[in-house]
Amino acid sequence: MIVITGASSGLGAALAKRYYQDHQSLVITGRNQQRLQAVADTLIHDTNATSSLQTTNRLTCVAADLCDATSVSQLMDAAESQFNGKPKMVIHCAGSGYFGPIESQSTTNIQQLINNNLITSILLVRELVKRYQDQPLTLVIVMSTAALAAKAGESTYCAVKWAVRGLIESVRLELKNQPMKIIAVYPGGMDTDFWPSSGKNLDTSSFMSADEAASMLKQALLATEHGYIADLTIQRG
Amino acid sequence: MIVITGASSGLGAALAKRYYQDHQSLVITGRNQQRLQAVADTLIHDTNATSSLQTTNRLTCVAADLCDATSVSQLMDAAESQFNGKPKMVIHCAGSGYFGPIESQSTTNIQQLINNNLITSILLVRELVKRYQDQPLTLVIVMSTAALAAKAGESTYCAVKWAVRGLIESVRLELKNQPMKIIAVYPGGMDTDFWPSSGKNLDTSSFMSADEAASMLKQALLATEHGYIADLTIQRG
Amino acid sequence: MIVITGASSGLGAALAKRYYQDHQSLVITGRNQQRLQAVADTLIHDTNATSSLQTTNRLTCVAADLCDATSVSQLMDAAESQFNGKPKMVIHCAGSGYFGPIESQSTTNIQQLINNNLITSILLVRELVKRYQDQPLTLVIVMSTAALAAKAGESTYCAVKWAVRGLIESVRLELKNQPMKIIAVYPGGMDTDFWPSSGKNLDTSSFMSADEAASMLKQALLATEHGYIADLTIQRG
Amino acid sequence: MIVITGASSGLGAALAKRYYQDHQSLVITGRNQQRLQAVADTLIHDTNATSSLQTTNRLTCVAADLCDATSVSQLMDAAESQFNGKPKMVIHCAGSGYFGPIESQSTTNIQQLINNNLITSILLVRELVKRYQDQPLTLVIVMSTAALAAKAGESTYCAVKWAVRGLIESVRLELKNQPMKIIAVYPGGMDTDFWPSSGKNLDTSSFMSADEAASMLKQALLATEHGYIADLTIQRG
Repeated sequence: MIVITGASSGLGAALAKRYYQDHQSLVITGRNQQRLQAVADTLIHDTNATSSLQTTNRLTCVAADLCDATSVSQLMDAAESQFNGKPKMVIHCAGSGYFGPIESQSTTNIQQLINNNLITSILLVRELVKRYQDQPLTLVIVMSTAALAAKAGESTYCAVKWAVRGLIESVRLELKNQPMKIIAVYPGGMDTDFWPSSGKNLDTSSFMSADEAASMLKQALLATEHGYIADLTIQRG
Repeated sequence: MIVITGASSGLGAALAKRYYQDHQSLVITGRNQQRLQAVADTLIHDTNATSSLQTTNRLTCVAADLCDATSVSQLMDAAESQFNGKPKMVIHCAGSGYFGPIESQSTTNIQQLINNNLITSILLVRELVKRYQDQPLTLVIVMSTAALAAKAGESTYCAVKWAVRGLIESVRLELKNQPMKIIAVYPGGMDTDFWPSSGKNLDTSSFMSADEAASMLKQALLATEHGYIADLTIQRG
Repeated sequence: MIVITGASSGLGAALAKRYYQDHQSLVITGRNQQRLQAVADTLIHDTNATSSLQTTNRLTCVAADLCDATSVSQLMDAAESQFNGKPKMVIHCAGSGYFGPIESQSTTNIQQLINNNLITSILLVRELVKRYQDQPLTLVIVMSTAALAAKAGESTYCAVKWAVRGLIESVRLELKNQPMKIIAVYPGGMDTDFWPSSGKNLDTSSFMSADEAASMLKQALLATEHGYIADLTIQRG
Repeated sequence: MIVITGASSGLGAALAKRYYQDHQSLVITGRNQQRLQAVADTLIHDTNATSSLQTTNRLTCVAADLCDATSVSQLMDAAESQFNGKPKMVIHCAGSGYFGPIESQSTTNIQQLINNNLITSILLVRELVKRYQDQPLTLVIVMSTAALAAKAGESTYCAVKWAVRGLIESVRLELKNQPMKIIAVYPGGMDTDFWPSSGKNLDTSSFMSADEAASMLKQALLATEHGYIADLTIQRG
């Protein structure tokens, strides 16, 4: 079973669609049960309409607040119990953006940015290491190219993304002799709801779609017996 | 005037001592007024005892909680009003540590680590850019070698330190044509209270003292007319 | 048409095989015409034996010394003339290894390492930018995880690999508004002839095969309309 | 005794002057004996004119081609024999620049750039590790901010500077338990002969002088008992 966070929209939803159509069992999660259910309904409807795949019981929606440790734990309990087993992959797409010159950023939005990107990642990684470090789990952390380079107008966004990178590079060292592994994904800007919700006014019509990024990422996650793509950036162009 | 955060102990206190003995006007800050006052009392007493420097009115203690935006603003108000002018340098030494394998870290301690290291830095940098971006202010941000490399057992500590680095590298780009500049300092472990308070049990007897680090840092901060040391790591050995 | 350097063995030969079986037109190159021809003969023979693909004229061997600017230019002339057009992709796999503590490395081997890895890359990149910067060419540069991190016992190897990374990151900036793009590939150790020829005695039986790496890389190079995977590391495990 | 390479001009010459005036014994080296001797004559003359320092026998010029392993070895032989002892510090300032878009760079100049920056550094580091790894030698390697970030128009220059960084970061790991240590210096552009000789036409009148950089660097190299500044960037501004 595959668990996808941030699955209500954007890359998370696009990955959910692709893995679902690829016969995988899925747990999709997000803050809002209604939005999750809408994604699930569309998925099941589209898939039924175009193929003969057996869809029942392969897709579960679990609303969760990843800023809350108990909620993270309940999410994984629900995932395990629903499919009576452990996940083989967790793809962490949840996150949000907030931009502007540092002197014009608001305290509330900064705190929210830290919650949505850094706290969520720490709590999820901690929960997964606790549960599955001796399992062949693949944990995919979707960050941003902002985790790799400083950018004017994105200081706090870079801060939280650099933080997640520092976190997972360190946890990789802790997992050195364990079967659990972490894959780091750094996508450039996509044409998704991320931008309007971040408050940044941007013409994203030439950006790659979430579905394009999902298609490349899904291909790249196909490991072989003795190797895997451990880090990848996805750029526009 | 020079403002030093985290001045109740460790590197902050050691820098305060050196700059005080060097005839500078100082605002020292920390959470606890009593501890600050004790540092100040020792400074004034030691200096009076050993030299003929005029000490009155050159040293002010201002207690402040750097996790609180209002408190940060009040700190700078107090500094400006005390010396009737703007600071020429702010040295941000405040911070705390927390260590251990990710799966054994507590939510409360993680939140505190983020507050003490990331939130403080964001709020302070924001306040200083707001007030002084068109002034020749030198802002010195003291991080850690953990901001430069991942370390097993230090995942969340690396996370917050990488975050601060991402923050200031981005803000540097925003300040590109401004006289305000940011200096990044990455010290390795010192023999200070940092370790006992972090919960890490370590024999630090061969580590450099805070005073050694302060002496090297103070020398390195001596800029020339057209240049300055912008980044430095300080290592044991 | 796709041009593959270092195609006589290892990852280069494995990629040649996969692209050949995928109906692509190929120019494969290496220093030794005989070894290249042997790779080509095997490819054509295996493909004829197992499928009905039309094989004639889709595969050309061009021996070239990439340390020599004239030879690099002649290679691209030959490629263009053979297929009467420009390449859509060039995959630069050529390179060699040399290891050991710095004090025991020989001047001759160091010079050879620089020639085989740095000079070749500079001359090839220069030739391709000259010819194709305004073309939609994808240039894939295969380096090593040694380009990303320092390693004891690999000082000069890291040096030349870091050099190539510095080169292509800079050339990327020069190509900013051009259709030509550069993809950076950082593979970990593979189970190939690289190791015996580098003088390093290593049990590589659990390493990924060149064919595994080729299969992952070929998937990852499938770009979409508005995006592509620009950087990837391939790890063992 | 302190050995300074690239001492005929720029930062090397400026450091030689400062250390000479600071009563140190010096070996200065460069390719051209005449230019070295001119630097030495000026040093001795200026120092005699302005102070009562004893100058005889504290300053030796040794011409050496650092691209040649034998010459590097003879340099260190000469240094040891002149002062009947081992150096306590070696400051490697030698190097040259070459710029322009990759497609317009000449093979000869590229080869020279590699020789002057990469080969020299490898051969010097190798010689010093061989001789002094169990000595408390401080090896200072002066690179450039081009070793830290890619730059359009500086692709091969970045390549060789990134190479030196990869080299010394790896050798640091090899020296982990040895008293010999390596200090990495990354200066931004200075107002020196470097620019005219690099072929880059630049107004450097607002750049820091070599003497300013030398003054900051010399201060920063003052280690304490248990610590030292291991890495530093020096920026204009």
